Amino acid sequence: MEKEILIFGHQNPDTDTICSAIVAERLNAKKGVNAKARRLGGVNKETKYVLNYLGIEKPELLESVEEGQEVILVDHNEFSQSVKGIEKAKILEVFDHHRICNFETAEPLYYTAKPYGCTSTILYGEYKANKFEIDTEEATLMASAIISDTLLLKSPTTTKYDKIALKELGEIAGIDVEEYGLEMLKAGTDLDDFSEEELINLDAKVFEKSGVKCMISQVNTVNIPDVLEREEKLKEAMSEEVEKNNLDLIILAITDILNSNSELIVLGNRTDIVEKSHKLENDRVFLEGVVSRKKQLLPMVEKNI
Amino acid sequence: MEKEILIFGHQNPDTDTICSAIVAERLNAKKGVNAKARRLGGVNKETKYVLNYLGIEKPELLESVEEGQEVILVDHNEFSQSVKGIEKAKILEVFDHHRICNFETAEPLYYTAKPYGCTSTILYGEYKANKFEIDTEEATLMASAIISDTLLLKSPTTTKYDKIALKELGEIAGIDVEEYGLEMLKAGTDLDDFSEEELINLDAKVFEKSGVKCMISQVNTVNIPDVLEREEKLKEAMSEEVEKNNLDLIILAITDILNSNSELIVLGNRTDIVEKSHKLENDRVFLEGVVSRKKQLLPMVEKNI
Repeated sequence: MEKEILIFGHQNPDTDTICSAIVAERLNAKKGVNAKARRLGGVNKETKYVLNYLGIEKPELLESVEEGQEVILVDHNEFSQSVKGIEKAKILEVFDHHRICNFETAEPLYYTAKPYGCTSTILYGEYKANKFEIDTEEATLMASAIISDTLLLKSPTTTKYDKIALKELGEIAGIDVEEYGLEMLKAGTDLDDFSEEELINLDAKVFEKSGVKCMISQVNTVNIPDVLEREEKLKEAMSEEVEKNNLDLIILAITDILNSNSELIVLGNRTDIVEKSHKLENDRVFLEGVVSRKKQLLPMVEKNI
Repeated sequence: MEKEILIFGHQNPDTDTICSAIVAERLNAKKGVNAKARRLGGVNKETKYVLNYLGIEKPELLESVEEGQEVILVDHNEFSQSVKGIEKAKILEVFDHHRICNFETAEPLYYTAKPYGCTSTILYGEYKANKFEIDTEEATLMASAIISDTLLLKSPTTTKYDKIALKELGEIAGIDVEEYGLEMLKAGTDLDDFSEEELINLDAKVFEKSGVKCMISQVNTVNIPDVLEREEKLKEAMSEEVEKNNLDLIILAITDILNSNSELIVLGNRTDIVEKSHKLENDRVFLEGVVSRKKQLLPMVEKNI
């Protein structure tokens, strides 16, 4: 068992999860706590853009934890989204902006949740509360996380706290937030290197309600038709996923992050769940103004189950 | 359904639960949020001493909440310790110092947990973080909660943060913490008015592990032999409780709060669980230095199940 405290975000790491883990390592160091950032999976292209921009290394990969390992969670709390062995770990602290579910501890802990658009906005608040100075690297990491999770403050998950944080962080980082943010988001939408199977697993969440098992995947793009050129192969991969994981419903949301719309591809034996709200044509529907899985797609599906 | 936000602590309210609910109401008012303190049961004698000292009313009784009711929880999170209907409520915020268990939400929320000795110590930190002034009443309420939960800073649950908070709160409140605290704790140990059934339910926690259902009750006293004069009737009441609630194990901890010891009375068909650690004589054992259910008794029982 590693003796040091480990900090990590969720599986299928996104930019908030990776940047928040690195920032939380630095925040802990300032408090005199030796804790190391880890990641639970491959780093996506958007996050690579950030790390390259700063010239810093990605955190080490963590595959599982042993009983009693001391950990700090960022950007998630549900055990099903966490590291293998999390049930036996000693969770010291959590920083998160999601609902609390499928989570429990044996002992009291530090838990800081706020319903903000991004975990890094909460960490920014921690720097403020502790009167810690934020350096250029930390500011760039947190700003990148906020840009990613809020799609440049356009997602409905955006709060005034994200806006305040991003403004100041952008200034400290010395970046033009709009320009840097678009470059970063575009880098993340370069999908050419991915197989269809990889695409539908890039950012996937599986959940179950009333015995209905669903998976909602999301890919971001700056041009939906580009992605739809691969529609048939995407559907094949989705059907295989349904088979492999006994899914009742699988949704792939292809989200245009510049114009804030999504095209859904919907398959499975319970597509009626989506059709209660939206008529499908050739297994697809275009949803104007829909960009957030957490605030828009998930509630729609859960309501209809 | 009540339109205002409701704030409450756990069932079988103690001084921290009641005082923290009142303080959280005032903290919210300072933030411009209209939220009202409630209580889930009768106010104990210790808490009455505090409210009488300040000349303020106890919060209104709350028996259940309806679907969608907006609530703020203090001093607990487990649904089994909360109000009837909590599963359907909308939990906006939690302030707590216990482990997280048997708790979930449908949406992101504010959750502030710290492993401190008392919820009011966390609320004290909120006043500080928001740069809110603490008035005499608020200081007395929070100081009383800390004195109660930490038994005048002598319980092993006490942290340095409780000590720092109590020192400043005592000064603002204008009380001699030691003198006021002893009076308050003594007031809470006046057990004469209670039936034996009431005594074992004054401060009771029920939990289940690996199919073993346990109840650990605690009464505080300044003189253990006084309480043991009622031993036979207490055992009768405990046996009835075992019958009524299908308990496998019931423990009554009679805790000497001045000298920090406890006498346990242990009944049920699984007294072997306690006997793995402590030999019982006539269903009893004296445990030197044991005062905390959360930090000492509960871990001993859970380890032995």
